[in-house]
Amino acid sequence: MVRKLQVGVSGLGRMGARHALHFLERTPRADLVAAFDPDEKALAWAKDRLAPFGTKLYNDYDEFLKHPGLEAVVVAGITTQHAAQAVRAIEADKHVLCEKPLSTSIDVCENVLKAAQAKPHLTVMCGFSRRFDASYRDAARRVQNGDIGRPSILRSQTCDKHRDDDYFVQYAKFSGGIFVDANIHDIDLALWYFGQDSVVKSVTAVGINARLAELERYQDVDNGIGIVEFYGGKIAYFYASRMMAAGQEDTTEIIGTHGKIVVNGNPQQNLVSLHESTGIRKDVPQTYYDRFEHAFVTESNEFTECVLDGTKPPFELAGAVAAVKIASALQKSLVTGKKIEYSESGEEIVSEKARL
Amino acid sequence: MVRKLQVGVSGLGRMGARHALHFLERTPRADLVAAFDPDEKALAWAKDRLAPFGTKLYNDYDEFLKHPGLEAVVVAGITTQHAAQAVRAIEADKHVLCEKPLSTSIDVCENVLKAAQAKPHLTVMCGFSRRFDASYRDAARRVQNGDIGRPSILRSQTCDKHRDDDYFVQYAKFSGGIFVDANIHDIDLALWYFGQDSVVKSVTAVGINARLAELERYQDVDNGIGIVEFYGGKIAYFYASRMMAAGQEDTTEIIGTHGKIVVNGNPQQNLVSLHESTGIRKDVPQTYYDRFEHAFVTESNEFTECVLDGTKPPFELAGAVAAVKIASALQKSLVTGKKIEYSESGEEIVSEKARL
Amino acid sequence: MVRKLQVGVSGLGRMGARHALHFLERTPRADLVAAFDPDEKALAWAKDRLAPFGTKLYNDYDEFLKHPGLEAVVVAGITTQHAAQAVRAIEADKHVLCEKPLSTSIDVCENVLKAAQAKPHLTVMCGFSRRFDASYRDAARRVQNGDIGRPSILRSQTCDKHRDDDYFVQYAKFSGGIFVDANIHDIDLALWYFGQDSVVKSVTAVGINARLAELERYQDVDNGIGIVEFYGGKIAYFYASRMMAAGQEDTTEIIGTHGKIVVNGNPQQNLVSLHESTGIRKDVPQTYYDRFEHAFVTESNEFTECVLDGTKPPFELAGAVAAVKIASALQKSLVTGKKIEYSESGEEIVSEKARL
Amino acid sequence: MVRKLQVGVSGLGRMGARHALHFLERTPRADLVAAFDPDEKALAWAKDRLAPFGTKLYNDYDEFLKHPGLEAVVVAGITTQHAAQAVRAIEADKHVLCEKPLSTSIDVCENVLKAAQAKPHLTVMCGFSRRFDASYRDAARRVQNGDIGRPSILRSQTCDKHRDDDYFVQYAKFSGGIFVDANIHDIDLALWYFGQDSVVKSVTAVGINARLAELERYQDVDNGIGIVEFYGGKIAYFYASRMMAAGQEDTTEIIGTHGKIVVNGNPQQNLVSLHESTGIRKDVPQTYYDRFEHAFVTESNEFTECVLDGTKPPFELAGAVAAVKIASALQKSLVTGKKIEYSESGEEIVSEKARL
Repeated sequence: MVRKLQVGVSGLGRMGARHALHFLERTPRADLVAAFDPDEKALAWAKDRLAPFGTKLYNDYDEFLKHPGLEAVVVAGITTQHAAQAVRAIEADKHVLCEKPLSTSIDVCENVLKAAQAKPHLTVMCGFSRRFDASYRDAARRVQNGDIGRPSILRSQTCDKHRDDDYFVQYAKFSGGIFVDANIHDIDLALWYFGQDSVVKSVTAVGINARLAELERYQDVDNGIGIVEFYGGKIAYFYASRMMAAGQEDTTEIIGTHGKIVVNGNPQQNLVSLHESTGIRKDVPQTYYDRFEHAFVTESNEFTECVLDGTKPPFELAGAVAAVKIASALQKSLVTGKKIEYSESGEEIVSEKARL
Repeated sequence: MVRKLQVGVSGLGRMGARHALHFLERTPRADLVAAFDPDEKALAWAKDRLAPFGTKLYNDYDEFLKHPGLEAVVVAGITTQHAAQAVRAIEADKHVLCEKPLSTSIDVCENVLKAAQAKPHLTVMCGFSRRFDASYRDAARRVQNGDIGRPSILRSQTCDKHRDDDYFVQYAKFSGGIFVDANIHDIDLALWYFGQDSVVKSVTAVGINARLAELERYQDVDNGIGIVEFYGGKIAYFYASRMMAAGQEDTTEIIGTHGKIVVNGNPQQNLVSLHESTGIRKDVPQTYYDRFEHAFVTESNEFTECVLDGTKPPFELAGAVAAVKIASALQKSLVTGKKIEYSESGEEIVSEKARL
Repeated sequence: MVRKLQVGVSGLGRMGARHALHFLERTPRADLVAAFDPDEKALAWAKDRLAPFGTKLYNDYDEFLKHPGLEAVVVAGITTQHAAQAVRAIEADKHVLCEKPLSTSIDVCENVLKAAQAKPHLTVMCGFSRRFDASYRDAARRVQNGDIGRPSILRSQTCDKHRDDDYFVQYAKFSGGIFVDANIHDIDLALWYFGQDSVVKSVTAVGINARLAELERYQDVDNGIGIVEFYGGKIAYFYASRMMAAGQEDTTEIIGTHGKIVVNGNPQQNLVSLHESTGIRKDVPQTYYDRFEHAFVTESNEFTECVLDGTKPPFELAGAVAAVKIASALQKSLVTGKKIEYSESGEEIVSEKARL
Repeated sequence: MVRKLQVGVSGLGRMGARHALHFLERTPRADLVAAFDPDEKALAWAKDRLAPFGTKLYNDYDEFLKHPGLEAVVVAGITTQHAAQAVRAIEADKHVLCEKPLSTSIDVCENVLKAAQAKPHLTVMCGFSRRFDASYRDAARRVQNGDIGRPSILRSQTCDKHRDDDYFVQYAKFSGGIFVDANIHDIDLALWYFGQDSVVKSVTAVGINARLAELERYQDVDNGIGIVEFYGGKIAYFYASRMMAAGQEDTTEIIGTHGKIVVNGNPQQNLVSLHESTGIRKDVPQTYYDRFEHAFVTESNEFTECVLDGTKPPFELAGAVAAVKIASALQKSLVTGKKIEYSESGEEIVSEKARL
């Protein structure tokens, strides 16, 4: 019989539950053999939804890691646990697919990277969903094909639909801020399309709280704009928002010397348009999952494939650390109000005055 | 000084008033020297809006035709008067721009054509506004350029926004029916893109009254669909409606052996889209004038140019008669419920039974 | 453990192979336990791709039906075998998902229907993929919700990309003609949106061979247009083509008294647009599978669900027969050049002359 | 007879010639009585194109200003002459429509403003064409109507099509730089939609020369990105480029607390789309004039109307000065690489270090 990857999912919150179902139902070469969550409610859901198919449930992460035959772990719980769980899984010799960001702390990110580098036989991937999206991949193919000449300017945004509850405020406590939480995806795209070895020259960020004044308490904003200059004549600029009226609006433009690629210039839930007395109307995806569901499924399948077939993941773990570094710098610029400049060797250039 | 064409407009109703203003204000090489309308209200408007600029007003068509120096007449009154006024203007040796249709009667149309042919030094044009529209012209250029191979299938529709009043019912009394009034434009497009010498092989039409039951009294419908087969392997199919919710939706597809051109596949009032909680919304032109205003202005300028420079009009008057013939046949098919077939020499093929 | 539906796929040609993979990999509640194809090449593919996962392969349909524990059969081979295989599977007490059309013959279709009606405990579905497409379902929801008032006019097209080989000519030998093969989907949509009990009043069809002159040998065309009038003031009109330059263009408009729904007005392969020196360009799906892949997967999952949970399928088998009847009538109208009329009780109205 | 405004145009270069024709042919309430240009070639064109209609030509600006009966002057020559000519025209008691920018120098701009303020009976307008564009006006109407809540974020870009010649390099000598030349329009939009009294809090700009390395000589870039923070929680961010492959791409988003307006999210030359073997393609306007022709015509008509009817212009001249100030600050930030901060009273905040 065919060998199937023995997978466990850690964290069965909103996104973790989806990962679990993707591995259970939509990843033919994987078996979801175990799942962990410390929360009773999450486990109750899993008992109903996963256990009947043979998934063993755990409320203790160490026990979970010891599940007989477990080969790979999906780390999908709360952000503050990502890195620690990933490292422990690596140490237990498990392949790891870790939700983004690895951590909101650069040092912690680097710990994960080091742990992974110490076990080169393991597949350790960070879950940048857009890397698995058909449209972003088509864009990458065209960029690599030279269709737009040399990529020079990138504009990218991650914009969530407004919520009437206090979700985004609660979330800000541990999210690391809007650039780390939302624009991390756009930063990763910049590295993808400009080259993973792109060296940051400066970062600048500004922001406002247009609707969620309470975010200020966490030094966060509901609308942020950032610019990242790279050495070699490339600039990326980003926008993130928590207050879109219509829905999730994640749009990217890659502008090259000889052409431009737009990804998702016109957000759409499906192929329907409604002609009514007030004009023509189209629905917009309500959440990032509405937009990227298929990308997540591709992610679980390709992670599985990499492990089983011993192939290289589509992108390096080091890139995930680089993205967090840039995101953190934007966050710092937002808070301090200062533009931050870097030498070509990657060190922050501190002005005379600041040094005094 | 530069010579300007001395123009008079006959009929100052909704569209006539617009023609008058186009010649007065937006046709630099023309002077609007005279205007005629039998209606007091229309003349009152003209007294206020045209007379101050030197336009002489008439309530008698013969007097109007005798206006000193008058060179050209725009026939823009009610459809039932088009032909008679056009013929009299031609007989008075005036150039004529006549609103479509020349007449709802083929015989009457042919009278106009004969009158025009008897005075070959005169410019006599039928006002098919789409012939002057930038997008339809771009389509024509591409077709002639061979961009889509041999044009084979044409789909075209003329769809008006629903009105809560009884305008369309009143209008049906003299409009000649939906195919003659609305699809005449689409038929003209078929002749343009397929070739003016296209020979009809068959026509079929069906229709319903979905909202305007009273149209039945006039043997008319508020939604009509027609198919016209041409000899040589070409088919045009048409849709006309009086009940669009969003606005004017005039869309055309020209399908060739090697490509397709779509004109106005996504109706839009302007370049604005509104993102709101119910999705993304765009406005639609509310009337044919919203959609074709610039085409009408181009029409007045090019008519003027043809006369002053002695150049050929962009299309022949005979085509306008051919379009009415096809439209009338569709109307006949609608009413009788029968498909009508024609020999290659243009004669209706009457079945055995019908001949008995 | 959870019960999984024991499924066998009959026919492993292009679409059959896809169905097999959908049940094998993308239908969590089903096991693909058996597969049948008389062709050695197809079986070789299956040996490589299906057998390792435990699927037993057969080159004899009767043996296949006797596979131990087999509960459901997907009939996905050549059209001419659909009905016979479906009937035998039903007689062997298997649930059946049969590719469209059941048959190109109405009588044969009715045999399948009778066989199914004799075994009401079985789920017997016809694979109208659009019924499972998210956009068409959204349209249905809106129609049922009254968003566009009373649906009155339906325009729908199934247009394939041109192929340089003789595929469509070879295919025409047994496809039943363009209306039966392609527009059958659009006809099914008309019944869905207008109501399954809609009664046909007349059908008319015309067509040309613009590129594939050899189709004439099989009384088929590469571009066909048809109109179907229904009693109660509803009209559907259809277009099918084998010569689209850009790709698969399946577009539908449902026009109601108070609004309009467009499905796929702007065909698109993904969310990318390319700005280049010749303008802005978007890719188009190349095949129906590019367009409807997810619908096919939903189809296999919902079929499985209906059987396992004993729920009703989303549409009745009788509708599939009704669709073939209409498609055949269009094909007959195409060949005879005649409009065909029906009484409200469904009988063809034969003219005096024809009766003589 | 009706009074017509006696207009003279100064400068008959590319845009000046267009202004002249707009007043000659497309501004019914104005007469183009005079035109000035020092260049023989421009005058030769005018002799052929304007003089026959009665326009008197001048190669001396003072003589031009003395043209009998001249009431209003359109200043449309090279940027470096805008301010001086405007001031002299104002001093000669003429109404003035001055092309943007008034000057690339803030002091010079303020001189124009002072001159205008000294003659409040004169209409003095700066030609921000987008203020007259139907789509931008629709956006303004919606913003004022509260359709998107409180406007908070504005994204706007002015992107020219790449040219193979050295036009942009030559132009950079006197254009004031990309922010002053191109983004000035976007800055003006920010003031329009955010409120003319918006107070700048900071500006930051970066840029690259991706194709036109020679621009560096003039401290200019071919791609620039800028951020402007305003007091009161509003941010505008801008992009300008000289290297678009497809054409002119001027797009604006106004993001409010409860909705978003997009202007020109999908640039298009007309309503045609072409389906061909490589996908679906749409043309893009090649120049700003392709995009804004009708806005320019509206501009000449409304300027005329303001003068003749004594009505207020749609926006104040002071705004044009404010826009130049912001544009100059962005240019300074680009060159120095520094973020510039302002106190709420409008003064630049100089850091400790810089003061030493």
